Amino acid sequence: MAAEARIRVAIVGATGAVGQQMLAILEERAFPVGDLVPFASTRSEGREVHLGRRAFKCQVLKPGCFAGIDMAFFDASDAVSRDWVPEAARAGAWVVDNSATSRMDPTTPLVVPEVNGELLDGLQGRVVAGPNCSTAQLVLPLKALSDRWGLKRVVVSSYQSVSGAGSAAIEELRAETRAALEGEDPLALEKRVFAHPIAFNCIPQIGSPRDDGYTGEEHKIIAESRKILDLPSLRITATAVRVPTVASHGESVAVELSRPFELAQVRGALAQMPGVVVQDDLAQGVFPMSCGRPGLEGASGRDAVYVGRLRRDESVENGLHLWIVSDNLRKGAALNAIQIGERLLKRGRA
Amino acid sequence: MAAEARIRVAIVGATGAVGQQMLAILEERAFPVGDLVPFASTRSEGREVHLGRRAFKCQVLKPGCFAGIDMAFFDASDAVSRDWVPEAARAGAWVVDNSATSRMDPTTPLVVPEVNGELLDGLQGRVVAGPNCSTAQLVLPLKALSDRWGLKRVVVSSYQSVSGAGSAAIEELRAETRAALEGEDPLALEKRVFAHPIAFNCIPQIGSPRDDGYTGEEHKIIAESRKILDLPSLRITATAVRVPTVASHGESVAVELSRPFELAQVRGALAQMPGVVVQDDLAQGVFPMSCGRPGLEGASGRDAVYVGRLRRDESVENGLHLWIVSDNLRKGAALNAIQIGERLLKRGRA
Repeated sequence: MAAEARIRVAIVGATGAVGQQMLAILEERAFPVGDLVPFASTRSEGREVHLGRRAFKCQVLKPGCFAGIDMAFFDASDAVSRDWVPEAARAGAWVVDNSATSRMDPTTPLVVPEVNGELLDGLQGRVVAGPNCSTAQLVLPLKALSDRWGLKRVVVSSYQSVSGAGSAAIEELRAETRAALEGEDPLALEKRVFAHPIAFNCIPQIGSPRDDGYTGEEHKIIAESRKILDLPSLRITATAVRVPTVASHGESVAVELSRPFELAQVRGALAQMPGVVVQDDLAQGVFPMSCGRPGLEGASGRDAVYVGRLRRDESVENGLHLWIVSDNLRKGAALNAIQIGERLLKRGRA
Repeated sequence: MAAEARIRVAIVGATGAVGQQMLAILEERAFPVGDLVPFASTRSEGREVHLGRRAFKCQVLKPGCFAGIDMAFFDASDAVSRDWVPEAARAGAWVVDNSATSRMDPTTPLVVPEVNGELLDGLQGRVVAGPNCSTAQLVLPLKALSDRWGLKRVVVSSYQSVSGAGSAAIEELRAETRAALEGEDPLALEKRVFAHPIAFNCIPQIGSPRDDGYTGEEHKIIAESRKILDLPSLRITATAVRVPTVASHGESVAVELSRPFELAQVRGALAQMPGVVVQDDLAQGVFPMSCGRPGLEGASGRDAVYVGRLRRDESVENGLHLWIVSDNLRKGAALNAIQIGERLLKRGRA
């Protein structure tokens, strides 16, 4: 396409929590959207979504619907991606798929641009997968550590907000919390998203149970981190917990590095990693959080992966602790997908 | 004292969150309280507290105030314990002190009765310390694992409720959450407890910052676990995080055992450990939580330490994951103290 060309963009899942973030980020980053085709479920057909001051009516997916689309961002269910990503690719669109459908397919690159964006430069097919939200924020600091010191083992415990489960989950948290504050029985409300109370409660299950006692989310963190870091035998384990926060995921990470380190060097390597912001001054109450306060920016609504609580873990050789927080709807999903799109565009222009 | 004797009990901090639980638990367990002397700050002087149907007026601490007291439970500030525990002991009372003041004093036993209650039988002095809440619930399952397989290394990430910071913290969470739900600025409220937003937010700092980058709470988990388990060189590390829950603490724990294990044996050993309840059926959505649902009891308001999400951690030899939840005001503080008192009484009668 021509250097100045504006392109036709499709968003599949445009009314969802991530789809809405995609629209905001396309506008923020002046992505060259010539035309936009938002797709949603039949329930939202005809509903308007906005890109800056322009309004677009949601359509439903149907055969031929990707004709003329240059780039399609998918953030819907795994089933929708399974059915429609191949159709979009056949129609000639570049596809960035945030579903889990093809992440672990060996022929599909799974990309976090700051970590392995070079895969896009040699892209053979037309489909690129974006990772699970809790993986996306984890691999940025891990990449910086891996390059310099090597990773021997990684232990992750996550503190994941409800927005990872979509807009309805946010509403469920709010409604249930309101009921709990009023002294009503939160469980008397109709539950649509979580099988357990979420108001003022932590739920140590995200995703489906697996036979090995792990959940789907925990498997994703393990398998996707290995693929993105290109460390197929990385020793990594995870416990994924839903906490009653609205946005951003926290991760308590204990890393064993392969070689000795100095904390100041670690801080420097993380600060130099693109996409990472170090917030690390415990004595001054500076560390990553979803919600900030005057003088300390919170992760929610922002692009960076915030890292802090850096300290030596004396319980093991070359042990290091990190606390990581990032907006799961942005770097964990919408932003990462659009960064992939930007790099594909740059390649198209080269 | 005589076999049937009812004793004079003092509670220092009787109007606090833990003090109130102590009163409830003394009644529930039919602790032989002949007379009760509740102590509180000058602000609460004269305020009535209740033990069953009996009401008692709060007094302020003053020289001689422990005359005639048989047993004193302290759950106030470290400063109050430092000033008044020695006076209570000198007055002839048995003292159970939940403050951090003398926990690490080598001459004071630090006791979780199910784990090291035998120390009470050989007690030399009159003062017994109770542990930090996040430590109390951790050491029960660790003791069961240690006895059978040995502990090589323990990595803890905590999910701690605000009640650990007292009644005012619960009010702060509720008020701030209400404001956030109403679309008001939660930070416009007067903050008395937390230096950071707590509504829908996780704060990765509990306790004072230390020079090594850890917090006071993290140091307590490490040092107190070693003392209670009588494993002074145990390799253990911790990250302590405040989450927006009202009651009960969660802990994601990755353990390396010294010897090979079968998961079924682990489940059996934990189920046999006094004070521990195993809730472990992921496929059925059964795991420990603060708030339960019909058919699954939540930890809050209950006595047990609940353990689940048991699974093999393949990232290390003999690796095991556990998820532990317990009511921090009960087993983490009030219940543990009263269990110590019961064992001291039994010893007194023997």
